[in-house]
Amino acid sequence: MRLRNKPWALELIAAHPQAIVTAETSNLAGHWAARFENPELPIELEIGSGKGQFIIGMAQAHPEINYIAMELQTPAIGMILKKQLELKLPNLQLFLADGADLTNYFVVNEIRNLYLNFSDPWPKTKHAKRRLTYSSFLTQYQEILPETGQLRFKTDNQGLFEYSLMSLNQNHWQFDFISLDLHQSERQATNIETEYEQKFAAKGQVIYALDAHYESARTF
Amino acid sequence: MRLRNKPWALELIAAHPQAIVTAETSNLAGHWAARFENPELPIELEIGSGKGQFIIGMAQAHPEINYIAMELQTPAIGMILKKQLELKLPNLQLFLADGADLTNYFVVNEIRNLYLNFSDPWPKTKHAKRRLTYSSFLTQYQEILPETGQLRFKTDNQGLFEYSLMSLNQNHWQFDFISLDLHQSERQATNIETEYEQKFAAKGQVIYALDAHYESARTF
Repeated sequence: MRLRNKPWALELIAAHPQAIVTAETSNLAGHWAARFENPELPIELEIGSGKGQFIIGMAQAHPEINYIAMELQTPAIGMILKKQLELKLPNLQLFLADGADLTNYFVVNEIRNLYLNFSDPWPKTKHAKRRLTYSSFLTQYQEILPETGQLRFKTDNQGLFEYSLMSLNQNHWQFDFISLDLHQSERQATNIETEYEQKFAAKGQVIYALDAHYESARTF
Repeated sequence: MRLRNKPWALELIAAHPQAIVTAETSNLAGHWAARFENPELPIELEIGSGKGQFIIGMAQAHPEINYIAMELQTPAIGMILKKQLELKLPNLQLFLADGADLTNYFVVNEIRNLYLNFSDPWPKTKHAKRRLTYSSFLTQYQEILPETGQLRFKTDNQGLFEYSLMSLNQNHWQFDFISLDLHQSERQATNIETEYEQKFAAKGQVIYALDAHYESARTF
């Protein structure tokens, strides 16, 4: 979802370099840990954090994990920054950058698990390459994740979920969890919802979810 | 679904050995083609045909394919036999036997594609081994199917579909098709419905479907 431009966002971002990294200034591949109050903790990354309800909820619920909220849209990440300046969560860093360039920004094993929530479905076949579960993206994920590191994916979009199941399977990812109705599943007890998820689930929309890891070797 | 016993069924079966094979008399592994009017056609198998609406519909719609309806319950297969004695479809054979013993009854490459429709979900975890997409069954399917031979699976049971996606993926089957709402998909135009499917879809129940083939070798 594209938000209207918010002029205050750029100023806010420029004024708080300790809380937010931008693609231009980023030279952090291999050095993300040092950005956090406790550099010993594992780092997890959300690609496309929107207004940040999910990643802030995760950072609050899991002080034992460091989180990076990656978001390409300035107004959206500006809104996360506003909340973070109040909350001052020691285990949350913001990153204004494009998820397509992941291997520029992170080294192997730097990210433990990776979250995609309600990514743009790009429903037209000619736009399949832009879907965040397209094979070129999966290759990037497998390059930064450790051997058992998971991609954790939620969407309400049936077409995108069908596509993602196919794409992950065909690219040799192994499913650790699948729910075709997350909010009725046992996992809902610990599920942190995005703004979008909350709104559409309230309308009766089913939420799909999966966890998968790249199957690096196949033993017969 | 277990049907009430029907005494007429056993008599009918005994009286028509040309139309139906029973597990006791079967010694047909490698010789199924000869049972059909046109032995040159590829053979496809449904495991658990129930009252036969699907497999009869397929045999009528696809005269270029030979079909075997496999069913363990005498009353059910008796009802298919009744219909077949009227229809006299040259490309349909009935087989009263247990899907668990598949490799006893068929040799490699004898079956081109295999259908599972609305199989018993066995929802309790302790019964997972009885689900027809449990790994031991998948191993049997891969032993009788040719390299690109497909398992084609439909169900309205969410838990069984989630389980089957996981099981197929983890056992190195590759998905060729997934629909989380078959009746709203393009494939519905050619979808032959089972009795059960027709009844439950009419109540608004979503139908899940997938095609998958065993990925016999992995090339990096």
